[in-house]
Amino acid sequence: MTDAAAKKTFPRQQVRRTKERAAYEREQCYAILDAARIAHVGFSVDGQPFVIPMLFARDGDSVLLHGSVASRLQIQLAHGIETCISVTLLDGLVLARSQFHHSVNYRSVVAFGRAHSVDNPAEKVAALIHIVDTLIPGRASESRAGDAQELATTTVLRLDLTDISAKVRSGGPKDASADLGLPIWSGVVPLLTVHGQPQAAADLTAGVGVPASVLRLIDSPTGTTT
Amino acid sequence: MTDAAAKKTFPRQQVRRTKERAAYEREQCYAILDAARIAHVGFSVDGQPFVIPMLFARDGDSVLLHGSVASRLQIQLAHGIETCISVTLLDGLVLARSQFHHSVNYRSVVAFGRAHSVDNPAEKVAALIHIVDTLIPGRASESRAGDAQELATTTVLRLDLTDISAKVRSGGPKDASADLGLPIWSGVVPLLTVHGQPQAAADLTAGVGVPASVLRLIDSPTGTTT
Repeated sequence: MTDAAAKKTFPRQQVRRTKERAAYEREQCYAILDAARIAHVGFSVDGQPFVIPMLFARDGDSVLLHGSVASRLQIQLAHGIETCISVTLLDGLVLARSQFHHSVNYRSVVAFGRAHSVDNPAEKVAALIHIVDTLIPGRASESRAGDAQELATTTVLRLDLTDISAKVRSGGPKDASADLGLPIWSGVVPLLTVHGQPQAAADLTAGVGVPASVLRLIDSPTGTTT
Repeated sequence: MTDAAAKKTFPRQQVRRTKERAAYEREQCYAILDAARIAHVGFSVDGQPFVIPMLFARDGDSVLLHGSVASRLQIQLAHGIETCISVTLLDGLVLARSQFHHSVNYRSVVAFGRAHSVDNPAEKVAALIHIVDTLIPGRASESRAGDAQELATTTVLRLDLTDISAKVRSGGPKDASADLGLPIWSGVVPLLTVHGQPQAAADLTAGVGVPASVLRLIDSPTGTTT
């Protein structure tokens, strides 16, 4: 396949299917990213695709990833290769009268870009704090900051969100009109992710209570999916 | 990068990091796949990686995907290009005394293979029924089967799971021994996905009650993440 053919066949940002569901607005994309914790990070090495789940945190118009400096994944990504990240929140099962019209409600983002390593020490510290505080708001200041050795063994990557698009489905089933009279249930079964009761570590220091960050998480009526 | 270098740098199935977490057993992989509903499907077109979320259903040693015949994604995949699917279940947030040792509990599978189109009509019908019944057990027989036109506009792909590996983290935080006395809470906040109360379609036929498939879903104490 030639370059031209490939681009024509599969343009990067154009959402071809179900255009009514496609929303390019960046704000909507950011809201979806901010509601998720795991991104599936894709890249290709010599034509072989890889998709790896990673924790992430949006930071302005970019996404921060982190990992061990010994990780070959990190090394590959830090080389600035073409990367695609995909984030999906599954909100519900949509049951129609026909098998064909069964669907799911979801919010998803696909973004393209190239990652680069965050090497400036101050920026790196700030990035790691931001990752912790995004995944568990308020947690960074409750916990011991990274020391020099920990920082040295951690790679932080920043992926600028240059091309980004969202795709969302919500609402009820869309049955074929001919099916509407059938005596078959149709509707939506919502899916929601909740935070369970915190389980203290077996070696927890005596007298230490559940911190504010965790209390806020478990008080929130709904959490995120994924 | 040469072929040899790429393979050496990033072998497909070898899980390099945290080998103690890597489990290659196929049964464990299948259990993870069966607990999930969304796979992130990665492929590369002319060096550009794409990662797209798709509903899926395991069928023996393969995974079934489906979509519209008009979808360029489906067409690309049906060409038998190299594909990587990644499935992740996020089970909990792991809070350590140090920022550095924060982690998550998860179960994930990465599998490689090439998809092919399921064209035999009987196999295609069986595959679509299997997809519905995997995502919502018992639903296929409750709903109207696909007709000839619906079948004609649906592509079913089968991806044989030739290379597959799982990666799992469970349990509590692993703090550095020097941190154990710190007055900082450490432990796990479980994450679980639950099915909410079913919401009937606005145009539901009068007198049709919530079906057995949905009652089973909402009675299950825990659902899946993703």
